[in-house]
Order: sequence, then structure tokens, then C-alpha cells
Amino acid sequence: MSQVPLPSTDKPRIVVIGGGFAGIKLVKRLKNLPVQVVLFDRNNYHTFQPLLYQVATAGLEPDSIADPLRKQLEPVKNFFFRMAEVYSIEPENNLIKTEIGEVKYDYLVLATGSKTNFFGNESIMQNGFPLKQIPQALDLRSHILQNFEAANIATDEKELASRMNVVIVGGGPTGVEVAGAMGELKNNILPGDYPELDFGLMTITLLEGDDRLLRGMSEASGKRALKYLEKFGVKVRLNTMVKSYDGLVADLGDGGHISTHTLIWAAGVKGNFPKGLNKESIDKGRLLVDPYNAVKGHDNVFAIGDIAMMSSDEFPQGHPMLAPVAIQQGEHLAQNFKHILSGKQKKAFKYKDQGSMATVGRNKAVADIGNMKVGGFMAWLIWMFIHLISIIGFRNKIIVFSNWVWNYFTYDKGTRLIIRKFIPKNRIKEEV
Amino acid sequence: MSQVPLPSTDKPRIVVIGGGFAGIKLVKRLKNLPVQVVLFDRNNYHTFQPLLYQVATAGLEPDSIADPLRKQLEPVKNFFFRMAEVYSIEPENNLIKTEIGEVKYDYLVLATGSKTNFFGNESIMQNGFPLKQIPQALDLRSHILQNFEAANIATDEKELASRMNVVIVGGGPTGVEVAGAMGELKNNILPGDYPELDFGLMTITLLEGDDRLLRGMSEASGKRALKYLEKFGVKVRLNTMVKSYDGLVADLGDGGHISTHTLIWAAGVKGNFPKGLNKESIDKGRLLVDPYNAVKGHDNVFAIGDIAMMSSDEFPQGHPMLAPVAIQQGEHLAQNFKHILSGKQKKAFKYKDQGSMATVGRNKAVADIGNMKVGGFMAWLIWMFIHLISIIGFRNKIIVFSNWVWNYFTYDKGTRLIIRKFIPKNRIKEEV
Repeated sequence: MSQVPLPSTDKPRIVVIGGGFAGIKLVKRLKNLPVQVVLFDRNNYHTFQPLLYQVATAGLEPDSIADPLRKQLEPVKNFFFRMAEVYSIEPENNLIKTEIGEVKYDYLVLATGSKTNFFGNESIMQNGFPLKQIPQALDLRSHILQNFEAANIATDEKELASRMNVVIVGGGPTGVEVAGAMGELKNNILPGDYPELDFGLMTITLLEGDDRLLRGMSEASGKRALKYLEKFGVKVRLNTMVKSYDGLVADLGDGGHISTHTLIWAAGVKGNFPKGLNKESIDKGRLLVDPYNAVKGHDNVFAIGDIAMMSSDEFPQGHPMLAPVAIQQGEHLAQNFKHILSGKQKKAFKYKDQGSMATVGRNKAVADIGNMKVGGFMAWLIWMFIHLISIIGFRNKIIVFSNWVWNYFTYDKGTRLIIRKFIPKNRIKEEV
Repeated sequence: MSQVPLPSTDKPRIVVIGGGFAGIKLVKRLKNLPVQVVLFDRNNYHTFQPLLYQVATAGLEPDSIADPLRKQLEPVKNFFFRMAEVYSIEPENNLIKTEIGEVKYDYLVLATGSKTNFFGNESIMQNGFPLKQIPQALDLRSHILQNFEAANIATDEKELASRMNVVIVGGGPTGVEVAGAMGELKNNILPGDYPELDFGLMTITLLEGDDRLLRGMSEASGKRALKYLEKFGVKVRLNTMVKSYDGLVADLGDGGHISTHTLIWAAGVKGNFPKGLNKESIDKGRLLVDPYNAVKGHDNVFAIGDIAMMSSDEFPQGHPMLAPVAIQQGEHLAQNFKHILSGKQKKAFKYKDQGSMATVGRNKAVADIGNMKVGGFMAWLIWMFIHLISIIGFRNKIIVFSNWVWNYFTYDKGTRLIIRKFIPKNRIKEEV
């Protein structure tokens, strides 16, 4: 395998894999250090994952939640971007192998995030819709709209309902948010577009295996989210799993069935990392790291963000897979690199909890901030504000804000476009 | 073939094919007439074609130049939309055949616009990039950016230049606009993204077979456009044709060659219509119509917009294929339908010339308005104003305006994203 062309340097080379929240923050903070920073990502853009569900439900354009990595990281002068899939790691040789060649590193940082976990269920993997990448969100948007076009000319009553129905699996933030957004589409938008259809036939069902929604948040917020969802016309079924899905009928764990052409799978994620690491470092699909984010059994390999499994007294099961954890770990690891390079002692990571939140729809969100459990309009305002300031790229902030103002006052969602028709064989599957 | 489901009616049914400028305007104006209006389009959105080149060159998001047809035409209550490709027409049976079944009509209106004309050149059709549809613009955007990623790691000098070079064929408005936009990318944006590349190697060449640019406009405007393009670093070669293009080298009519991975074909369009019409009605790829837009040899079949070839004393070669002609013909035909339905005399179409214009880049455009030939900043302001008021959908106006303000003041183009990697076999070819 040939070498990936890179300027030769006598400075240590830090190779970062993944331009998500953790990777971007780390690279930015390495700006003035005497190192060469090389970032690999299979895409040339950063994805603002918290708003993917709005792309899938025609509220935002994909380009407004993506930001070009080169532009974002242009001010970092010791920085080199290479767009490529990383295949494997050879820690014993300090080497990674990628689709464009191999690269030696002095330090390696895995910031590869998470991918959808289907828990080995082949039928759901084949026919359900994951929601972790922009092309997946676009496929889902096309699929939903194409189903309404088909329902509109369907002559068979059963087919008609099945094309209108939507099932969402997983009562975490993504599941709740996408269910709420589908409720808004049903209530405010689709009946205007399809006056020939009877929307009384359409059901939106959110399935959750647990006995409550939003397990990562307070019980008050879980209950509120449930109440809001029901207000938006979503049927929430707790303690209900889906066993299999053939693209037409979802078979439930309790023996029931739901006819639907659209099953959205938001029931789990797992770490997303290249081959080649020590087996002992992998635990439940994530990489075990010490309080300095060093991967177990490796000296110069680090992991930050969703992929890193750092347990502590406060988080015995590892830190939550949330953007603030990723951002803080990126910042912290950059600090530790400063300490390493100047021969000082590394410092242990300590998460500053910034709370968590989920939005359900128009004027309705839930937020846990410290001991405060906020709901309704206030939580919704906080949610919007936090997301607007977090989204990467100033242009994106303007475009997202414009869309939100538009959506709010007109009860409209403007991007209900089938720009590339979704054809099952062309769909974007979950990539490694 | 089964029937396309439609409500039965005792009113005359007007079937319109194509939701471009002409089709949309016609349908809107048929609003209160005692007819049933059925619109077919293969997409569920209208495309604002004049700004496609900005999508291809990372200045605008695709969703901002597309508007959902159902939303746009929701106020028309006697209106039914069907998303489907139309295969053929059987005028003797007053019938059209589509991918979702067949439909009888009382009146048929073809508003199917134009498609790229490769003039039978197979090699250019296989390897060149047309620019008439949103997926094509997205493919081109991806292709250009992927080439820069590849150039960045190229070790062969010849490959490197070839990946950076761009050739545009055709000196009409599209060719001039895309060449100017590429010049802006080269001057202001790409060098920041790719500091490792030597942009002295990159050439942008505009080829035109004629001895001047912008044949449809005044000579003064053609000369100005040439001057502006050279200012933006574009090499303009007049009196030069391209003979063939294998994806790597363009062979020119004068015996020269240009190495390039990107050849954009903007050298011609032709009418885009289903099979089944009288042969005598077809002339140079367009449909001959009388002054009432009725297709030659057919009583109840009309054609409006780019596809209609209506010659007059003023326009012996037919009206120009421009948005204002399409819009005015749509309006006019709606009026004539009123006359037909009330038994009155139809009126002949008369084009109100609103001038024509083309933009080259930042602060530089040309406009012919009556006898005025405007250039530079003033023309550029007029161009922006006209396009903003013409673009369909208020949300789109806001988003396009926000992007333009952003691009202007930051010298940035925000959407340089490879959202779906362009793989040659996946590319969107010109569709019939």
C-alpha cells in the first residue's frame, strides 16, 4: 500500500479519525501546538446530527446542517485534511490503512462516533430506516413523500393506510423528536398537500421496549414528552418491542402487527471504529478508555466522544453519548497533548453536565438542567437557542434560523422535495 | 394499462404536462374556470433553472431553488397533481400514457421544457456534464470537489492539473454564468481550502463555436461579458468547438487538446416531449404552434414555453427559450381557455420583451433592457433583484437572499459539500 502524501515534518504527527463534535474541537485546540495534525473523514463535511430528524421530515435543507471541514478548520495552519475511509489500524507499527494509502502516526485519536445498532436483526437492517447520516435522512424524506404520492393513487384500502402509516422504534431523543415532527406533518402540512386523502387513516406509532420515554432524562421529562406526543396525535406504546419487519408489516413482541411502509429505527447505536485494536479494549461496541481518554492497552491511541467508554463513579456505564461530552473530551485531550508535549502530568477528564433536552414539536420540548425540569414553551425556546448556538458555521445558523421562523409562522415545512427518488437498491445503508 | 385514479367530473379536463414556469403559471390562472386541471410532472417540485449553476458551484443549496408543486398550487381547488413520467400521447384517442396508468383529456397542454442537446456526440454525452436538473447540478458539485480532494494527493503533475482544470462548452448565459462562478471559486475559495495546491496550474476555459459570447443579447453585452470573464481569470476561446471528450482530454476542432476531468456542456438544448405527436408538428426538436399555442395538426393539443416553436415576423426562428416567454404563454393560454369555454374568439400571443441578462460574477453582469445596454455593478444589482422576485416560493427568496448576502460579504460559498459521492455509474443522465 502506498503512503498518503503528506508534508514531511520533524514534529510529532497526531492523526485524528472523524470530524464530528469531538474531532473538530480537538483539531481546533491543537492549533498552536508544535505538532502536525492530520484529520481523516469519509466525508468532506461535519454533520450536525441533532437536527438530522428535521432534514428527514422536510423542515431543513441538508446543506444547513453540514459544514465543510476544510473551511471550518482553515485557521489551523499545522492541519491537513484527507477525505478517506479508514480501513484498519496497526497499533504495533503506529500505522493506519485507508482507502488512499497508509499513514504513520505518533499519536492516534479515534473520534469516529457511533452508528446504528440493529442488534443483529437482519430484517430491520434490510427494511428499516436508520437516521445517523445526511444521505439516510434524505432517503427517508424521499421515501415518506413518495409513499404519499403512491397512497394518493392507491385503489386498495389496505395499501393506502400502510403507505401513510409510520412506525418509529425507540423512545430516546431521536425517536421522540422524529415522532413529534411526523405528528406536525400529519396535522399541519400533508392534508393541504393531499386533499384527496383521508388522514383519519394515518397512524404514527412510537414503540419503546422500556416502560418510559427518554430513559437518559428525568422521569418528569419522560412523562411530559409522552403527554406532548399524544397531543400531536402520536400513539406511544411502551413495553413494546418489534421482532421483525419485512418492509410491509412490523411484527411486535406482544404478538401484534402494524402495516407500514415506513419503519424508522432509532433504538440503538454502537461504536464505529476500524479493525486492528486490542480485543480487551472493546466493550459493548465502544472502546474502554482511562480518565485521560487513552484506549486500554495502548499508549499512544486515544478515543473521544461517543466511541469512548470512560466509566467513573458518576457514570459506571460510561459517559452518555451526547455532543457536550464529545466537545469537552476534544477540548480536554488537546490540553493533555500540551501536557504530554511539555513533559507535564496529564489531567483526568471531568464532565461538566450541561443538562439534556429533547423537542417534541411546536412550542413543546423538555429539558433537564441541573435540578430544573423544564417543559413546554420555555423548554422549547431553550432547545432552539442551544441548537442555534451549537450548530457549526455561521451561514448555517442564519439558514436554520430563517427556516425555523418560516416554519413557525406559516405552519409550513418548505423542503418537502423528492430530489433524488428513493429506489430501494440505491439506498444508503449504514456504513462502517 | 389501468386508469390513473381521478375524481370523475362533467367539466372538461385539461391535462398539463410539466411544472416549469409555463405550466405553473397556466395552472394558477385556470383557478376559477369550470374545468378539471390535472398536472403531471416526473418531480414533485418546480426547478428554478436560472440558478442551477449556483447549486453546481456551491453557492446555493438545492432546496432553495426548488419548490414543492403541491404547495405552490394548493390554492387551485379544481387541481390534481400526479407525479409520473409521461410516456406517450395518443391524440386520436385524446389519451396520454404514463408510468402510473393512462388518462383521457379534453385539452392537452405540453409544457415539458427543454433538455440538453448533445447533437449526437456520444463521447460528450457519456463524459460531459449537462446542467438542466437539480440532481445534475449536485453531481457536478460533488465531482468538482472530489477532483480537488484527489488533486490534493495526486503525485503525478499531469493528473493534478487535469483534475483542477475545468472546460465549459457554450458561450450562452449558462456557459458564461458557470464560467464566472468557477472563476470566483478559483480566486476566492479553493486556495483557502487547498493550501497544498498550486492554483497557478488550474485553468478555466470557456469554448464557444461562434465569434462572440451571448448570441441572444446585444453585441455590447457580449463584449462586456468577455471582458469580465477574463478579469475573473477565465480563458475564453471563441470560434472553437469541441470534437470529442473521453473524460480526460477534450479534443478541439482546431486540433488542440485540453486535459480536464470536468467538461461542462452548455452548448445547446432541444425540446423535450413524449412520443405520439404528428411528425409534421416537430421542427428542430420543438413543436410548431400557431399564435394561439395550438400544436400544428392538432385541435386540442397546445404547447407553451421552451418546447413551443411559435414563429412571427419579429421571431422568424421562434421565440427565445426564456422564462418570460414561458410565463407569458402560460398566462395567455389560460386566457384563451376562458375564451374557448365561453365560445369567444381566441387571441393571438404577443410577447412583451422584458429584456435579457446574464451575470458573470461578483459585481459584474450584463443586461439588455429595451435599447439600454447596462453592465457592471448596476446590471448585477438588477440581475439579483429580478431573480429574487422571480424565484418561486417565499421561503426560497429568504434563503437565497441570505446566502447571497453571506457570499458577498464573506467571499465564501458555504455549500461545498460532497453529500452523495459522485460515482460515474450512479450519475444522473439527461432524462427524456
